[in-house]
Amino acid sequence: MRAPERSVELTQVTEWEDGRVRKVQDALAAEEPLEIRIGGVPLTVTMRTPGHDLELAAGFLLTEGIIQSAEQIAGLRAITLENGLRSNVVEVELQDSDFDPEDLQRNFYAASSCGICGKASIHAIRVRGLRQLESGFRVDPEMLCRLPEALRAEQAVFSRTGGLHAAALFDGEGQLIALREDIGRHNAVDKIAGWAVLEKKLPLSQHVMLVSGRGGFEIVQKALAAGIPILASVSAPSSLAVKLARELGLTLVGFLRGRRFVVYSGEFRCVAAPGPGGSAA
Amino acid sequence: MRAPERSVELTQVTEWEDGRVRKVQDALAAEEPLEIRIGGVPLTVTMRTPGHDLELAAGFLLTEGIIQSAEQIAGLRAITLENGLRSNVVEVELQDSDFDPEDLQRNFYAASSCGICGKASIHAIRVRGLRQLESGFRVDPEMLCRLPEALRAEQAVFSRTGGLHAAALFDGEGQLIALREDIGRHNAVDKIAGWAVLEKKLPLSQHVMLVSGRGGFEIVQKALAAGIPILASVSAPSSLAVKLARELGLTLVGFLRGRRFVVYSGEFRCVAAPGPGGSAA
Repeated sequence: MRAPERSVELTQVTEWEDGRVRKVQDALAAEEPLEIRIGGVPLTVTMRTPGHDLELAAGFLLTEGIIQSAEQIAGLRAITLENGLRSNVVEVELQDSDFDPEDLQRNFYAASSCGICGKASIHAIRVRGLRQLESGFRVDPEMLCRLPEALRAEQAVFSRTGGLHAAALFDGEGQLIALREDIGRHNAVDKIAGWAVLEKKLPLSQHVMLVSGRGGFEIVQKALAAGIPILASVSAPSSLAVKLARELGLTLVGFLRGRRFVVYSGEFRCVAAPGPGGSAA
Repeated sequence: MRAPERSVELTQVTEWEDGRVRKVQDALAAEEPLEIRIGGVPLTVTMRTPGHDLELAAGFLLTEGIIQSAEQIAGLRAITLENGLRSNVVEVELQDSDFDPEDLQRNFYAASSCGICGKASIHAIRVRGLRQLESGFRVDPEMLCRLPEALRAEQAVFSRTGGLHAAALFDGEGQLIALREDIGRHNAVDKIAGWAVLEKKLPLSQHVMLVSGRGGFEIVQKALAAGIPILASVSAPSSLAVKLARELGLTLVGFLRGRRFVVYSGEFRCVAAPGPGGSAA
C-alpha cells in the first residue's frame, strides 16, 4: 500500500545517544489543517495528515450526523489554489440545503441543559440519529487475534515516522478491506467512514474496525455512525465508551494483544459464553 | 500521589485468553464531558477525565489565548447540582467583559482566508498573542533521560486502567513539580497550564514538560502559551509541531527513551553542538 501524498516530511534533527551528539535526517508525519466548508460556510478545521481529504470530509459529515448517506452529498471537491497546488480546504454542497452548522452544538447543549453528564452526551448522540445496532455478525476469536499483526504489516507510513494513528477495516474472515492513517485518531476513523460513504458500502454491518489508539467515546460514536458492529483496539476504552457501546449494542474489544483480549460489550459476537467452570471452548 | 476523584470506574468484562473465557473486574479510565461557560455562555465542551476541573478550565483559557494571567479571572467555580453532586460544568467570569467566544474561530478564519495552510495556522496562533520564547534555561541531557521513569513511577491511575495520558512538569534538576492525567492528551497539558495559572507560577520559564503521547501542533502551542521552554515526549512530533517550535524558539525533544533522544528544535537548551567528529562530550 502506497504512503499517501505529502504524509511524510523530511527534516534535519539532532540525535543524542549516550553522550554522543550527531545530526541525522528524520521523517516527520505531516500535519496540516483541513477546513471543511458546507455551501461556502466554514464548518470546522481539523489538524490532519494530508491525503484522503475527500474521505475525511465525507466521513466527518457522516459521523457527526450531518448526513446519513452519499446521496445527500451534491458536491465534494478539494479547492485548488491559483498556482495549481491543492489547498487545505474541502467544499461540500448538500442536497438538503436547510443544514445549519450551529445545530451541531445546539443539539449538544439542548441535551445537557439540566447539568451536563455522560448521560446527556449519550442522549445528544441519539438526537443525532444513532440507532441500536441490530447486526447479527459474529467472528472467530482466533481471527481477532490476527488483526493487529495484519494492521502492522500494512502500515507503510507508521514505520517511517512513528507518529501516525491507524484505523483498519476487516471483513468476517480477517481480510483487510481498507486502511487509513492520520496524526489524529479520530481522523483515521473518519477517513474509513468516508471511504465507505463514497464507495457506497454503508452500513458496514459485516465488518470489524481495529484502531491503533484507545477506544474513547468519540471513536465508539463514529463506529456506530458507520454501522460497524465490532470495534477493537490494542489499548483500553474509557468508561463512557463502554456505556455507549452497551447502550447501542456495539461489540467493544480492548487490549487485543497476542492471544488475549477483553470484551467490554456485545460478547456474543466474538466469544462463547463462559461455562460453569469459567471457561469455554 | 492520590488518584483524582472519579477518575476510575469499575465494571465487569469478559476476558478471552488462548480460548479460555472468564468474567473479570476491570478498572476503566473515567470519561465525562466538561462544559466551560464564560459569563453564563457555553464556550466549549471537552471530553475529559473528571478531577482538577478548575485547572482544566483555567488552562484552556490560557492556552487558547483568552487570558494571559490569573488576574483576568474574576470568578471560577464548578457548578453544584441541587442534589449536592458536582456537575460537569465550570463557570468562569472574566474581568475583561468584552470577550466574544466567536473571536476564537474568527481569528483562525481571518488568518486563513487565502487558502488555509500550516503557515496560516502558525499565523493564527501568533494573532492569539504567542511570542518568541526568550528563556535561556538549559538542562543536562542525562537529567532528561531520567524523566520518563520519574513520570511512570508517579502515574497512579495509568497503572490501573492503561488508558490515561499524562503531562508532567519538572524543574531544572529533574524534580517533579506537577503531574496531571487525562483521557485526552490536550487536557492533561491544559491541567498543568491551569495549575500554573491558579498557583501564579506563569510563565513556566525554568521548566521541562514531559507528555506521554505525541508532540503535535496543539501541544506545542499550549506549551508556548504557558511559557515552557522545553517540551519532551517519548514519541514522535508532527511536521507542523516542529515548524511552530522552530519559529518561536521552543526546545522540542522526541523519542525520549532509555539513553537516547532526538532534538527537533532549540538544541542549545539540552545538548552541546556536535563536534567535527560528529560527537561531543
